[in-house]
Amino acid sequence: MLEQFKVSHDDAEFVQGDDLKKTVAGIFEKLGVTPEDALLAADVQVLADLRGVDSHGVSNMLKSYITGYQEGSINLRPNWKVVRETPSTATVDSDKGLGTIVTPKAMDIAIQKAKNVGVGMVTIGNARHLGMASYHAMLALPHDMIGICMTSCPPQVLPTFGAEPRLGTNPIAIAVPAKNEPPFVFDVATSSVAVNKIRIAARLGAEIPGGWMAREDGSPIMESGLAPEKFTLLPLGADREGGSHKGYGFSCMVDILAGVLTGFGYGAVPGRPNFGHMVAAYSIDAFTDVEPFKAEMDEWLQMMKSTKPAPGHDRVLVAGQPEAEVEVVRREEGIPLHPDVADWIRDTCSEMSVPCLF
Amino acid sequence: MLEQFKVSHDDAEFVQGDDLKKTVAGIFEKLGVTPEDALLAADVQVLADLRGVDSHGVSNMLKSYITGYQEGSINLRPNWKVVRETPSTATVDSDKGLGTIVTPKAMDIAIQKAKNVGVGMVTIGNARHLGMASYHAMLALPHDMIGICMTSCPPQVLPTFGAEPRLGTNPIAIAVPAKNEPPFVFDVATSSVAVNKIRIAARLGAEIPGGWMAREDGSPIMESGLAPEKFTLLPLGADREGGSHKGYGFSCMVDILAGVLTGFGYGAVPGRPNFGHMVAAYSIDAFTDVEPFKAEMDEWLQMMKSTKPAPGHDRVLVAGQPEAEVEVVRREEGIPLHPDVADWIRDTCSEMSVPCLF
Repeated sequence: MLEQFKVSHDDAEFVQGDDLKKTVAGIFEKLGVTPEDALLAADVQVLADLRGVDSHGVSNMLKSYITGYQEGSINLRPNWKVVRETPSTATVDSDKGLGTIVTPKAMDIAIQKAKNVGVGMVTIGNARHLGMASYHAMLALPHDMIGICMTSCPPQVLPTFGAEPRLGTNPIAIAVPAKNEPPFVFDVATSSVAVNKIRIAARLGAEIPGGWMAREDGSPIMESGLAPEKFTLLPLGADREGGSHKGYGFSCMVDILAGVLTGFGYGAVPGRPNFGHMVAAYSIDAFTDVEPFKAEMDEWLQMMKSTKPAPGHDRVLVAGQPEAEVEVVRREEGIPLHPDVADWIRDTCSEMSVPCLF
Repeated sequence: MLEQFKVSHDDAEFVQGDDLKKTVAGIFEKLGVTPEDALLAADVQVLADLRGVDSHGVSNMLKSYITGYQEGSINLRPNWKVVRETPSTATVDSDKGLGTIVTPKAMDIAIQKAKNVGVGMVTIGNARHLGMASYHAMLALPHDMIGICMTSCPPQVLPTFGAEPRLGTNPIAIAVPAKNEPPFVFDVATSSVAVNKIRIAARLGAEIPGGWMAREDGSPIMESGLAPEKFTLLPLGADREGGSHKGYGFSCMVDILAGVLTGFGYGAVPGRPNFGHMVAAYSIDAFTDVEPFKAEMDEWLQMMKSTKPAPGHDRVLVAGQPEAEVEVVRREEGIPLHPDVADWIRDTCSEMSVPCLF
């Protein structure tokens, strides 16, 4: 996340991760989610907060999940099931269950299949928002496996040369275990930027860099400036010269693997449920010896981090490293919540007669 | 490929694909490659030419393959073998065999495994250049499977904030079958641009758009201008504000899956053989019914292509469509070779006493 869009450290109220998790789980449980699932849904959001992925943490997601449950667009007690299966694959009908709850269960299936036959890959249709995609990919790590997660979302991104949004922000996540280094954890939207960053910047009246969005007619805005009232997102690469056909193509890949391949439709299909997901687990042992692999990942990560920096930068980062660094701090200091968010959670708990632990 | 960097149509000598293929196969055979493998290697290059992917066609690749064979860096008769295997995975030691020859065989293994258990995934180490990555991905199409191919290359791309190249152009390809529409075929380097485009532009004295390369000290060149004498490539996204950490991360993913996971090292590891590959096949039938899937891919492709275009553009393209359109023309008209290239092939054939069919 770009520094200027972060919650100021000074204003924040710090809440311990466990307290936040139990509080959020209490809210879900009160809504009618089973205790076990409520804790899982809370864990997904709070891990995002702990790792500094605030866009997918409690402050940004909890309200929409509560609303979804209350309005019935998310199913409190989904009868999710495997509708097709082979030794290395499964297709899950999520029955409108929250993705933060059903996706970890689908990942468990993928991991079990990878244990049995080397690779496990599960598509999930009729699905809902899954939170931080890397949460699900990281479930593979303790099993010495590589984890993958993709999710196809409702359209808000333009295809290259296009004036109508056809694709979601369609993120891709991959997690790879190392030995002593923090794991490689890559988790990005295939759009140029997440829409939340533009919304926050617009709210703050901040200038937005060129290459993030297009005007209403589809023309890319390549100069920095204020956000127009109506805009759409550009794919990664911004315009054709910058390689936007690549960002567009990666987004298409997600729309197919986590959309069409679920059998429950793609992002822009009329009447499709909101989301489709795909998770996969690759057993390292199926390809090569685990310990040398993890030692080489350490070497690879250290090589990347020790790259001589370009002028104006003091170090080179590698995916998963900033999040691991934030996690160390936040597990100690607590999660910084904007005071308005902390108050909103307290009010919500009070209205629902749920204990708030902060 | 950006239009201004293409061989001019007027200057070109047109050669039929089959004639070019037999001629190239003759050269490989004369060097000592088996007749069957020689034809395969030629097919990979000529299909690139037929599909307009000139960067991976005969004119751009043949010379380096001949040199590699002559110098012994590529093995004429590789004793490639599966060194590890599970029902859904295999690891191949390519024994320095040309990637254009060994990778299709590895893909056959992946396809067979996908037939048996749903998914097949094969890593290939100790490997050499595999040509157009989508060639291998597309091998899955006639089997009603989705094909994947990645290849980790020697370093020439900077990590975000870095001043030393740590990653190759590390391409990713995916091919997905449709019913009546040409298949979705996505095949891109994870760098901002292929180095060949910059070399060609430099040779022509043409201006290069901002965001493609960095100065020697690692600072991204964000304004258009002539190429400096020394430059390195930027990851897709160009700089941090443009999302270069995403291009960098995709490139890392390839370095891991097609590098570390092979057990034969990653792109920048000292002493690693030049390339590592990964191919995979996903059986559609393992996830959902094949015919509805292909019909829905048609609908999805048509939806994408019928997107209202932005000002200055007359249509929206989808990955694989431009290549399919070029292929129709070139199978009829022939492949346009620069006269110097055609002459060089004729001279090479003459020196090697190999028949040239044009």
